[in-house]
Amino acid sequence: MERYTAVMTMEPVRSSFASAAPESADIHAAAARIAGLAQVTPVLRSHSLDAIAGCELHFKCENFQRVGAFKFRGAANAVFSLDAETAARGVVTQSSGNHGAAVALACRLRGIPAHVVVPGNAPQIKLAAIRDFGARIHPCEVAQADRDRVCAQVLAETGGHLVHPYNDSRVIAGQATAALELLHAVPGLDALITPVSGGGLLSGTCLAAHAIAPGIACFGAEPAGACDAHDSLVSGQRVVGRRADTLCDGLRAELGPLTFDILRQHLEAILVVEDAATVAAMRLIWERLKIVVEASAAIALAAILAQPHRFAGRRVGVVLSGGNVDLDAVPW
Amino acid sequence: MERYTAVMTMEPVRSSFASAAPESADIHAAAARIAGLAQVTPVLRSHSLDAIAGCELHFKCENFQRVGAFKFRGAANAVFSLDAETAARGVVTQSSGNHGAAVALACRLRGIPAHVVVPGNAPQIKLAAIRDFGARIHPCEVAQADRDRVCAQVLAETGGHLVHPYNDSRVIAGQATAALELLHAVPGLDALITPVSGGGLLSGTCLAAHAIAPGIACFGAEPAGACDAHDSLVSGQRVVGRRADTLCDGLRAELGPLTFDILRQHLEAILVVEDAATVAAMRLIWERLKIVVEASAAIALAAILAQPHRFAGRRVGVVLSGGNVDLDAVPW
Repeated sequence: MERYTAVMTMEPVRSSFASAAPESADIHAAAARIAGLAQVTPVLRSHSLDAIAGCELHFKCENFQRVGAFKFRGAANAVFSLDAETAARGVVTQSSGNHGAAVALACRLRGIPAHVVVPGNAPQIKLAAIRDFGARIHPCEVAQADRDRVCAQVLAETGGHLVHPYNDSRVIAGQATAALELLHAVPGLDALITPVSGGGLLSGTCLAAHAIAPGIACFGAEPAGACDAHDSLVSGQRVVGRRADTLCDGLRAELGPLTFDILRQHLEAILVVEDAATVAAMRLIWERLKIVVEASAAIALAAILAQPHRFAGRRVGVVLSGGNVDLDAVPW
Repeated sequence: MERYTAVMTMEPVRSSFASAAPESADIHAAAARIAGLAQVTPVLRSHSLDAIAGCELHFKCENFQRVGAFKFRGAANAVFSLDAETAARGVVTQSSGNHGAAVALACRLRGIPAHVVVPGNAPQIKLAAIRDFGARIHPCEVAQADRDRVCAQVLAETGGHLVHPYNDSRVIAGQATAALELLHAVPGLDALITPVSGGGLLSGTCLAAHAIAPGIACFGAEPAGACDAHDSLVSGQRVVGRRADTLCDGLRAELGPLTFDILRQHLEAILVVEDAATVAAMRLIWERLKIVVEASAAIALAAILAQPHRFAGRRVGVVLSGGNVDLDAVPW
């Protein structure tokens, strides 16, 4: 196992939910809490993809999840775990993507206000989704400092509660339920692989897997143009502040202190993938599995095809993280 | 109920399998025979599509079936119901599309020869699929008379056994298993809808539905540019020999005598749909359900959206028949 050595992190944390990894009981509580809210997504297989990859692939289809991505699991777990008084003041988050829509939907289902801080360069289609679910949008500049400033201002004005997109144990526990379902649906997996961006999905996947079967090897897949997580884990220092350059628009975030800590303890390796290989894998999934996945999801298959020796003959669970694609701009 | 009055058909039949509708026991035998060969495909739902359609939609995803279409069910049932001596001489069929690939795969799984008569205008990608599954391809001219001539010649030369794409009770019983699975997965459906071309899927769906729940209303969806089935059922005379003009390349066949007879007894109505509405529905399915379906499958949703009063407030099963699409030529 290529586990990474643990070093101390100096990063400040913003809330108690950002400082402690969820335990097995928290993950099972999350599964119970979001049952009936989130979809139990199907696991698909393909004879021809197995033949191409040289291993047995089990695809957990989170592109079929509500809002079209696994993000709804973590958002729903966080929103529905709030006490009534806190919930009534509303939830605040920052996101230009699926987490914003997921928080907006979870809050609508709970009947509480949602505030989403969105940078000015967010696609109109994502803004529309957040608005359609009834959230109030707070525009900000693209720079992280301005996002943080507006977010703090909204928190102060509303008295609302922050739900971070990934550096939050409740969100991680929610994302972990995808792997939990997959491991129950397909016993005896040898390995799991998910994309990595901020690390919420991947760290939840590691925790769920190792709670059930400590021997499962967990992998992350990361774009070459945004491989801060790979470099962080190799160097033992969390890399921050780089500019991401990848068409995987869901994989441009950086690890948080909490997800970094969890991955250092649990991860086998992060596999770095060129965008061209990701696009080829995306097309292969559309053709063979007959499902619509975004590039940020297809990267997991691309990583397997790029490093087949790691998976040869093994039973591999692949979390296909989302399917929100502009159908007028497919990348081939 | 707008059931059609039955009139005699004068058409000759080519084999005993073309003259009698399968009974309920035949459909259950087919389900047992193809278990482990065919996929039990998932049923997907979408909150947003329900809201758009004004009814409760349950999508049976035969685009996830082997060879990417429901056709494998009928082919597998026919091929695996042959006695050993007949099977050893091989199976012959004519098809430029999914039925050819389905027969080829079923024969490969049984370890017997497959002969597929394919007209010269068949797409290279479909020829490649048939060949990849190990079938021998026999080219012919496009005209039906030449197809029949080459098919008869191959039958005579090989002593093989004919499996017609739809006018065959074993094929119809196999296609019926899709609706059988859907009705077991979703009890209490009010209506079922499938596309109609030669009528194998739709007549099997009618038989499965009415064996379980006689009150279920069964609908077909047919392109305006190839609405021979609609006109046949309205006039009581099977319409043949028209030129089809539709982008739904899987819906250009005509009813056979057997499927015509079954539909006259069981069908509520055939809903005729313009191609533009089918393309819009296809895109909607890709966007909301996150799955790849072909136009010939999406037509069923298009029919519901075009005549919403027929389905308002009801629980509707939709058989999404296939997902074989040229990803370089999506029709929007």
